[in-house]
Amino acid sequence: MSSVRYNQLIVGKHKHEIETPALLLYADRLERNIDKMAAFFSQVECNLRPHFKTHRLPVIAHKQIKAGARGITCAKISEAKVLAESGVRDVLIANQIVGERKLEQLAGLAHHSDIIVAVDNVENASQMSAIAVKRGVKVNVLVEIDVGMNRCGVGTEEEALALAKTILDLKGVRLRGLMGYEGHTVLIPDYERRKSECRKALVRLVRVRDFLEKNGVPIEIVSAGGTGTYTIAGRYPGITEVQAGSYATMDTQYRKIGIDFEIALSLMTTIISHPTEEKYILDTGLKSLTNDMGMPELIEAPGAVIDAMHEEHVRILWKNPTRNLKIGDKLEFYPSHGCTTINLHDLCYVVRNDVVEAVWHMKARGASQ
Amino acid sequence: MSSVRYNQLIVGKHKHEIETPALLLYADRLERNIDKMAAFFSQVECNLRPHFKTHRLPVIAHKQIKAGARGITCAKISEAKVLAESGVRDVLIANQIVGERKLEQLAGLAHHSDIIVAVDNVENASQMSAIAVKRGVKVNVLVEIDVGMNRCGVGTEEEALALAKTILDLKGVRLRGLMGYEGHTVLIPDYERRKSECRKALVRLVRVRDFLEKNGVPIEIVSAGGTGTYTIAGRYPGITEVQAGSYATMDTQYRKIGIDFEIALSLMTTIISHPTEEKYILDTGLKSLTNDMGMPELIEAPGAVIDAMHEEHVRILWKNPTRNLKIGDKLEFYPSHGCTTINLHDLCYVVRNDVVEAVWHMKARGASQ
Repeated sequence: MSSVRYNQLIVGKHKHEIETPALLLYADRLERNIDKMAAFFSQVECNLRPHFKTHRLPVIAHKQIKAGARGITCAKISEAKVLAESGVRDVLIANQIVGERKLEQLAGLAHHSDIIVAVDNVENASQMSAIAVKRGVKVNVLVEIDVGMNRCGVGTEEEALALAKTILDLKGVRLRGLMGYEGHTVLIPDYERRKSECRKALVRLVRVRDFLEKNGVPIEIVSAGGTGTYTIAGRYPGITEVQAGSYATMDTQYRKIGIDFEIALSLMTTIISHPTEEKYILDTGLKSLTNDMGMPELIEAPGAVIDAMHEEHVRILWKNPTRNLKIGDKLEFYPSHGCTTINLHDLCYVVRNDVVEAVWHMKARGASQ
Repeated sequence: MSSVRYNQLIVGKHKHEIETPALLLYADRLERNIDKMAAFFSQVECNLRPHFKTHRLPVIAHKQIKAGARGITCAKISEAKVLAESGVRDVLIANQIVGERKLEQLAGLAHHSDIIVAVDNVENASQMSAIAVKRGVKVNVLVEIDVGMNRCGVGTEEEALALAKTILDLKGVRLRGLMGYEGHTVLIPDYERRKSECRKALVRLVRVRDFLEKNGVPIEIVSAGGTGTYTIAGRYPGITEVQAGSYATMDTQYRKIGIDFEIALSLMTTIISHPTEEKYILDTGLKSLTNDMGMPELIEAPGAVIDAMHEEHVRILWKNPTRNLKIGDKLEFYPSHGCTTINLHDLCYVVRNDVVEAVWHMKARGASQ
């Protein structure tokens, strides 16, 4: 809807001149987050393959690769297409690609990128192979293991071995390794418990690798890890890649459990009504700011209470504002969940020292297919 | 992200050939909903001005107007722009438009549509007027009254009168009437209680009208009402317009309280993993289907339980499926909240007799500014 070109007029202006609600990305914090994560992975054996599903911006993916990332992880074929078109070659789709139409797209992509995809089912692998053969490509695959998240993935070593052996026999797919995502552990508040639960998942994953190798199946990649567990998975012997994504932009849910990156993202909003002494109505709501991981956090507004969130309105109660507020004034929120909030926006306004330095088109916004 | 032209290839095919997750709009149900609501308003004194914020599709707005609607209601200047560009002239922005940049856009719009906007603040009205005068237009306004929702709007008759008198003195704005939205009552499950609570709000609104008219302020429009209260507001003496929007596409939250329109909207998804006997993983999640009004409902799946909703995955447990399900099969959800679910999509697939007859671009998707 919003036009990038139109919005270029805002470049060079103070952030408060941006029309709201607007997604702001603080460039210096983003860059420090990328550098900090890169520094960690430069000191361990494991590689970083950051997840694209959070920021969905190819420009950030390229910054992550330049800082040392092995490649990029994403969740959907539509995201992988955006990455390939922006020149990112090494892409893991950490998800199942199902059905003829999507497998045809996958084969098409394999001509232009070194795509890897998760597989947990024999029929799916066979269909993928048949289409790849027909299109003259080979698709790289990882066997997905359910390491306790209770989502996709095979459950046992025997199932993994059977699937891996089938894959080895298929001409259109190439087995590269294993994947297991310990998503059920990444948000555990207590670090020691998070570490022990995460390690249980990693033990399962590495045990499957050992079993497969013992049975003659070579395993090159073992992929795991999120922003809440990257230090644990990144140091765990046998894990070769970590998929952390949220760290680049961060959000309050990860800060709440002590993940030490800066929140680089905010949602800027305007006071549109001030009906009573303590009540302020803001021009954001569920269509531009999510609450699926809890309420967002008002920045620099001690004592302000988010009283209600509607589609296009947020009502706050603020008894003793730290500054004099009036209709037209801007406030900012830190999102509780960056991934779902970013998904609502067509544009993000890149800010440094409170000045807009770029307007980026969210090229993969809504790329859920 | 997704291209409309590319998607035209799906027109004429069975709906199960659509790539998922996908938003489906059942054309016949939509048309029956529009006709049914039009029939109601043809029999009462009140006019219908349907809300655009639900479907955000100009093609539906034009169908509603053709069926007799007075004009269209929307929530944002960005939605009003989409409407004006699609030729809808009579548009109420049922919200405050704040700040110089947006007021300049409002004045620009007033050259191309008979725009009406809600006002609850003197400074805002004055700034609006000054910009309108500079641009050679007059902007129509409604004074918004807080009828108990505790959001925007002035609270008392005296405040309303003071604001109305200021507006009468301003050269760039034209007072057309009043608006009050009883949003706090539209989802009350018990009809009798909903009716009595709604009427309390309408009493307040009509009382303000009486007070203003007694004090020499002519009131032409009195706007209220939602899909949960249209029969109450539409028959209430003194209410001249109802803003109901959700009725066109409907959702399960409104069906739950007995609103008798058909659900015309579904989210189609594919089974991408079937790791154990009863467990199925679907390719939709919070990025394509919202749960801010409760979990969506699986269609034609008695006994299936939605076990988890992640960003791009839904896990369902289904002990005794009514049909044999396998990876690649399609399932459909009725959204619990149409407005926020539609907001996530770039395209909607228009279906009649299970065949795709059109692919519509959600022109106002993400139009929250």
